[in-house]
Amino acid sequence: MKFLNTVSYKELRNILENISFNTSEEEIISIDKSLNRVISKDIYSKINVPHFKKSRMDGYAVIAEDIFDAEEDNVITLELIEIIDAGTIPLKRIEKGKCAYVATGAAIPEGANAVIMVEFTIRENNKILISKAITPGTYIVNIGADIKEKQKICDKGHLINISTLGVLSSCGIEKIPVFKKIKVGLISTGNEIVPITRKDLNIGEIYDVNSIVLKNAMLNTGVDVKFYGIVKDNLSDLKDIILKTLTERDIIIVSGGTSKGEGDLGPLVLKELQNIELLIHGVKIKPGKPFIFAQMKNKIIFILPGYPTSALSCFYLIIENFLKKASRLPLKEKDSKRLEIGERIYSTIGRYEFKPVLIKKIEGKKKIFPINTGSEAISTMYNANGYIVIEELESIVEKGEFRNFYKF
Amino acid sequence: MKFLNTVSYKELRNILENISFNTSEEEIISIDKSLNRVISKDIYSKINVPHFKKSRMDGYAVIAEDIFDAEEDNVITLELIEIIDAGTIPLKRIEKGKCAYVATGAAIPEGANAVIMVEFTIRENNKILISKAITPGTYIVNIGADIKEKQKICDKGHLINISTLGVLSSCGIEKIPVFKKIKVGLISTGNEIVPITRKDLNIGEIYDVNSIVLKNAMLNTGVDVKFYGIVKDNLSDLKDIILKTLTERDIIIVSGGTSKGEGDLGPLVLKELQNIELLIHGVKIKPGKPFIFAQMKNKIIFILPGYPTSALSCFYLIIENFLKKASRLPLKEKDSKRLEIGERIYSTIGRYEFKPVLIKKIEGKKKIFPINTGSEAISTMYNANGYIVIEELESIVEKGEFRNFYKF
Repeated sequence: MKFLNTVSYKELRNILENISFNTSEEEIISIDKSLNRVISKDIYSKINVPHFKKSRMDGYAVIAEDIFDAEEDNVITLELIEIIDAGTIPLKRIEKGKCAYVATGAAIPEGANAVIMVEFTIRENNKILISKAITPGTYIVNIGADIKEKQKICDKGHLINISTLGVLSSCGIEKIPVFKKIKVGLISTGNEIVPITRKDLNIGEIYDVNSIVLKNAMLNTGVDVKFYGIVKDNLSDLKDIILKTLTERDIIIVSGGTSKGEGDLGPLVLKELQNIELLIHGVKIKPGKPFIFAQMKNKIIFILPGYPTSALSCFYLIIENFLKKASRLPLKEKDSKRLEIGERIYSTIGRYEFKPVLIKKIEGKKKIFPINTGSEAISTMYNANGYIVIEELESIVEKGEFRNFYKF
Repeated sequence: MKFLNTVSYKELRNILENISFNTSEEEIISIDKSLNRVISKDIYSKINVPHFKKSRMDGYAVIAEDIFDAEEDNVITLELIEIIDAGTIPLKRIEKGKCAYVATGAAIPEGANAVIMVEFTIRENNKILISKAITPGTYIVNIGADIKEKQKICDKGHLINISTLGVLSSCGIEKIPVFKKIKVGLISTGNEIVPITRKDLNIGEIYDVNSIVLKNAMLNTGVDVKFYGIVKDNLSDLKDIILKTLTERDIIIVSGGTSKGEGDLGPLVLKELQNIELLIHGVKIKPGKPFIFAQMKNKIIFILPGYPTSALSCFYLIIENFLKKASRLPLKEKDSKRLEIGERIYSTIGRYEFKPVLIKKIEGKKKIFPINTGSEAISTMYNANGYIVIEELESIVEKGEFRNFYKF
């Protein structure tokens, strides 16, 4: 077992980036449920698109050579032998001197090699008077012009977007092989935590915020999340629920239980588990120092601080991209803007701090202001527009300095 | 009835922006389903958060005055009378000379006015030796410090995000009043269109792409979408399904049926409907000229071209933001980048063209290249990275010019 007490944020990110933990099992799902899923094997079209020659315009399917001499003052007359609407099968062959009406998208009858637009024709009963010459192929969409039979249309690993749905459905591919979702189990711990459905709070009790916030925050990381309930702060209850969750899920995320003073339950429970290969206890960041990460063969456990603002920070800074990578989704890019500090900001030496900040417009210029409620306040996250990073050895960021501002 | 034959893209956008068509009915939903919904009335907290005085640290709840003189070389001893963990109710009052252990988050007992961190104490059985003075209030979170009872926590119209969930759940608000979703009905038309579940295609038939693509494209506009099936190209069938859909949905989106040559069904059907107040037939854009918009009291009908690439362009350029506005969601901002044209691009005079383009890196510089398959090809949209706008009177965009490139 590799046991690392406290690591820096950079070390942790390095460790997590180098863990190979990706969804690899497949399942077959309906195209209608496949948006934002990842394709698990190369997909080839079984048909040509279009799979018949069709007209690009409303007009008449002709033999181009029949009307090579047509001009406004040399109208050529063809005999109309059939009307072909979109969706109907042509029944007759076009011979010299004949033509058939074709709607946009309709199949071109045998024998014809071009379409003359209605605009250059006059119909008189069964006679079509044509006043313009066209070359062979005009306004005909050939078989496979869009997608060819056996052509690869999607690569393994491709994230299904709206355009992908268009290509798959035009090839008639209704069942899509995709990677299964990573299964996450979520556990809230703490004697003080009660479910939101409880009507009144006793002294000492607070509502369970983390299960709702973390579950929803995970929705767009491509994972499937199940909440396993609120567990009291005692070793055997916590161990039982973790063991149960381990049999059902790939990743376990526990909130609370990382720094309980009298009894630091998280690490105690983990040390009793078999097969732990890597255990990190503590990351030098603020908020969220009480953070635990454990790897066990094909399972991962994260234990986050109990304060919702800290837990959510840990989620955004550490877990979100881990889950996205595990789900084979593109990682979230960190957009940053360089802005001026509007008021002196204090920080604790020795911790890499993600300081929640507010952006205010002062005389037309966006500036950064600290939010000075702590991580015990849920309103801290609510009021923040994003954060700035304060290095381990900085204790003050001075008014007037320029810093990178990141959105959550 | 106001009947406008063909309008420019700008005129259409102006008309749509000025139509007041917003969701206004309310419903009450569970917080767990409320992410990305819009709050329909101001929400106030019914409780203080926290609703009891609590400790910010693991330590001892004391009367600050008792230890004003404490220093490393002047240790003051207090009697430990109770252990208060998070979630438990303090039973005893702190009198002069006494203290109680409080875990982080635990309730502060009556009488105490500060918390001394464990780090500055030594415990010897029931005696706590304290080596540091603190001021009243230290490490105590007061009642309502985070959120006050009766404080407004969310405004009407607020879009629920992850932080909102945190604030609502910390106040124990489980049932959330939100605006109902706008109900959209989707209809595919065309004799040639068959559902994707059909195994083999006959000559002349193509798979229904629009229902799958448009339905999924609408998922993040905040609406509820129901597909009403594929309808044949005949007046009475189309009229019947539109009448049925009108009784059940707020907005109807029909794909196909806008320019069928022999019988232009869309406008024919609409002209038979009662109470049409505004009808636009045709927008001078490419692709998507065959476009119909109708307003009838509290209902809206869009008829889009049948070609999937054209239908999807119309969706992105016209309908997406209309639905977002109707759902009270923030409109999609058009991000554009100024890039160089890598190859001459042709356009049709008289139409405002949204030309699908490809971005390629040429000698390290991103440049714009045209996609020359037409709107009849589904691969056009699939291969495009975005589009450029070509004005009505431009027929050529020359290599080397700089243009705004927009992502879809």
